[in-house]
Amino acid sequence: PALHTMVKMVTMLNFMKVELGETKTLRSKEQWRAAGAEFIGTLLFVFLGCGSVVATGILDSKMTAARLVAIALAHGLAITFLAGATGAISGGHLNPAVTLAFVVAGKESLLRAGLYVGSQIFGGIFGALFLKWCTPESMRGTLGSHDVNPLIYGSQAFLMELILTFVLIFVIFGVAVDRRGPGVIAPIPIGFAVVVDHLVGVPFTGASMNPARSFGPAIVSGAFGTQHLLYWAAPGFGATLASALYRYVFLEPAEAALA
Amino acid sequence: PALHTMVKMVTMLNFMKVELGETKTLRSKEQWRAAGAEFIGTLLFVFLGCGSVVATGILDSKMTAARLVAIALAHGLAITFLAGATGAISGGHLNPAVTLAFVVAGKESLLRAGLYVGSQIFGGIFGALFLKWCTPESMRGTLGSHDVNPLIYGSQAFLMELILTFVLIFVIFGVAVDRRGPGVIAPIPIGFAVVVDHLVGVPFTGASMNPARSFGPAIVSGAFGTQHLLYWAAPGFGATLASALYRYVFLEPAEAALA
Amino acid sequence: PALHTMVKMVTMLNFMKVELGETKTLRSKEQWRAAGAEFIGTLLFVFLGCGSVVATGILDSKMTAARLVAIALAHGLAITFLAGATGAISGGHLNPAVTLAFVVAGKESLLRAGLYVGSQIFGGIFGALFLKWCTPESMRGTLGSHDVNPLIYGSQAFLMELILTFVLIFVIFGVAVDRRGPGVIAPIPIGFAVVVDHLVGVPFTGASMNPARSFGPAIVSGAFGTQHLLYWAAPGFGATLASALYRYVFLEPAEAALA
Amino acid sequence: PALHTMVKMVTMLNFMKVELGETKTLRSKEQWRAAGAEFIGTLLFVFLGCGSVVATGILDSKMTAARLVAIALAHGLAITFLAGATGAISGGHLNPAVTLAFVVAGKESLLRAGLYVGSQIFGGIFGALFLKWCTPESMRGTLGSHDVNPLIYGSQAFLMELILTFVLIFVIFGVAVDRRGPGVIAPIPIGFAVVVDHLVGVPFTGASMNPARSFGPAIVSGAFGTQHLLYWAAPGFGATLASALYRYVFLEPAEAALA
Ligand SMILES: [Ca+2]
Ligand SMILES: [Ca+2]
Ligand SMILES: [Ca+2]
Ligand SMILES: [Ca+2]
Repeated sequence: PALHTMVKMVTMLNFMKVELGETKTLRSKEQWRAAGAEFIGTLLFVFLGCGSVVATGILDSKMTAARLVAIALAHGLAITFLAGATGAISGGHLNPAVTLAFVVAGKESLLRAGLYVGSQIFGGIFGALFLKWCTPESMRGTLGSHDVNPLIYGSQAFLMELILTFVLIFVIFGVAVDRRGPGVIAPIPIGFAVVVDHLVGVPFTGASMNPARSFGPAIVSGAFGTQHLLYWAAPGFGATLASALYRYVFLEPAEAALA
Repeated sequence: PALHTMVKMVTMLNFMKVELGETKTLRSKEQWRAAGAEFIGTLLFVFLGCGSVVATGILDSKMTAARLVAIALAHGLAITFLAGATGAISGGHLNPAVTLAFVVAGKESLLRAGLYVGSQIFGGIFGALFLKWCTPESMRGTLGSHDVNPLIYGSQAFLMELILTFVLIFVIFGVAVDRRGPGVIAPIPIGFAVVVDHLVGVPFTGASMNPARSFGPAIVSGAFGTQHLLYWAAPGFGATLASALYRYVFLEPAEAALA
Repeated sequence: PALHTMVKMVTMLNFMKVELGETKTLRSKEQWRAAGAEFIGTLLFVFLGCGSVVATGILDSKMTAARLVAIALAHGLAITFLAGATGAISGGHLNPAVTLAFVVAGKESLLRAGLYVGSQIFGGIFGALFLKWCTPESMRGTLGSHDVNPLIYGSQAFLMELILTFVLIFVIFGVAVDRRGPGVIAPIPIGFAVVVDHLVGVPFTGASMNPARSFGPAIVSGAFGTQHLLYWAAPGFGATLASALYRYVFLEPAEAALA
Repeated sequence: PALHTMVKMVTMLNFMKVELGETKTLRSKEQWRAAGAEFIGTLLFVFLGCGSVVATGILDSKMTAARLVAIALAHGLAITFLAGATGAISGGHLNPAVTLAFVVAGKESLLRAGLYVGSQIFGGIFGALFLKWCTPESMRGTLGSHDVNPLIYGSQAFLMELILTFVLIFVIFGVAVDRRGPGVIAPIPIGFAVVVDHLVGVPFTGASMNPARSFGPAIVSGAFGTQHLLYWAAPGFGATLASALYRYVFLEPAEAALA
């Protein structure tokens, strides 16, 4: 039965035109440069995103609307400039859920995706580490780790993170993958999607949409929260859903075939 | 007399070059894809817009300037990225008032407009439903439903919504319909118009400018407020006024004729 | 001596290549369309700008940093989308100080400038009137009229308004007039200049930079403040200074000559 | 040994392809125009940045999240429009750390860099002076001078400023220097980097990233703080690190050679 399952999975991957990639990819200098950009970009994103949570926590000890605006702008505008700065080198994913979406759409090979996701996760850890090194223990709290609001159900938190990630991936496909979209300004609407996702999601789940953003501060501060796995599963589902929908429904047939 | 009225209306529609459209439109795959984009785009807009009202209501229980900024940014930046993401597929209306404006300008047939408005209204309902499913009853209030400030007259509320919608439609025509406008960045000024309309209108009418945004949470939460019809009539008037003005006064004769 | 002064002024205008313009200008349909765009654009700018002051005054009765952010975003983002929407029709001045700057740079004739300034002033009055009609007397205060902080000297207020206007005009010339600038995104940095000018100037002078924005609510509410003339003189000086500096120092000789 | 050190430094500069520049540069009109743009741009940046600290200090006497948002937007959006306005004239550095980064990348000669840095420092001083002249003594505090939070170690402050500057320079290279980046919108992500750096750094170090911004108000108000040199050294290190990394790792070999 295990063999049977594997055969079925390979058939499905084949049907979806997911490519394994060739191992020579890992010997290409350009691939490692792209991985480096993902590492640095995610490091800076986690440093700045978590840093805004810690910094504003010094000013307003509980969450307020003003603090929410600061945190949302920090995460979202950081995506605008970091995805803008690394876009030409690596595509500027900076998020395992984004890389997964590209795999599902047949636009990234599994091997390269593995390299990217590894770089993003290590980037997230080092981003949190640098933040720890910059801030005194009395101020740093859990380094901006995510946790689910205790007043909401796990299923509600899961649906919230799934939808927020769906928003992000849908926008990335509409403005950057789809060649008919407003390509040149793409980092701006993508960053704005992250701003608004935070304005909605922070009081419920912290608004992750990005396992590397959730994992880095959790492992460095030890604050994994009550439902850490949710920050991997819900973005994964949301990204898969948005990517498959956009590819099979909205991408022009010619472009989808190109993938 | 009913016949007489109908003849007069048809004559007027003919004079305005409003097209009925051909029923074969409804058999085109592209039309349904556009309707799907309007459905998903409006769903996400209502989820995020109403979501920001609910989320910030958890932090600051009454309306404050900080909460106003969060709500305004959520609605406006969402229009930037959702209109940007669906623009190439459906035109990114996401609002029955916008579709009406295109009909009045002779740039959308009545049949296609009906398809769009239906998709937007259903999108708004599902957006509010998903928000309900994500949030505990104790926190969700009226799901961000609009209501008129009890201290202002109905006529003042009507004029406010009319002007705010006029602003939105005037900007859409100036930056996106008019070919002389700054086309490539268009989703940014259009989203900014929604931000500013909220900064002005929220304390008076909630700043709808969009019947789908008003109707979705009202039907799901049951909170239709005291003057729900105003959120259909005032945006309708404002959109018609701005569209007709831009078409007959500002569009270049050649382009207006093309419509 | 009056004759002598007039001769001197005409000589100076001639030296600066300021053009009187031909009266047939006033018979051109395009000129009146441009004047109409200036009227509507300034009307909406004053409605939204003053509206944000009134609306946030309902929420936070005294000025707070959060309210300042809301007011600054409302004025600045409104300039982005209104200048963006009217740019192709009239140039999107929406401000007598901007029109003056173009006259000083020899890029607008005196006759057309008069038409523009008149349209802007009437636009400002009607913007304040519409705001009055939308808002109950108990809430509308002075309709967002400007006044100088009683703790600062008139000379300090004058210098503040002069510098804030200098910033605006310098940016307009750098990003929109100078052909080497980032033309296509120009309405965004110009709007951002208005945002930041407000973040600095509101607690001192209200941050006008625009006589039409100051005059409209003052005449409608009767609240001319203690130093209304300052809102004409200081922007006038600041605009003249920035325009002359940019033209004679920074514009490429070829382009300056073209003016 | 002094001679030996000098020989070693020259060798290193040669290896890095840093160019001394030719003295005839200083006789070129274009160079002085560029220096003038750096002077005015930095003057206005310091006036507006420090001005936002002073202005919001009148409203909220201690630092709050709302005030942080105002200060961050003021500094960051000012960089967007001032770098946008001076970009075609001088490159829009407005910051000695940015000029240093260009020297390290071999894209600016030492002589021209000296001219720029001098202009920026004088610009910063005059920006602070104009702010002093506009504001009453009772309100102006230390004119927005930077100081390190007494609860954090000097090494933490140093690392914080180094990383914040690294972010800024990395983004400048990714979006403006690298020809594959999103050139036309570059001033927007660069300004956003300054916004987010402030949202993170203000409660710790004030978020300078720019010695001219730190030096101007310090010399005018006399408030050099406890660790003024940090505001020169840390941005210097951060800029050097980001520039060298981007040049040797991410710039395409052909483009790096061009430098
Ligand atoms: Ca493929
Ligand atoms: Ca038609
Ligand atoms: Ca001329
Ligand atoms: Ca060189």
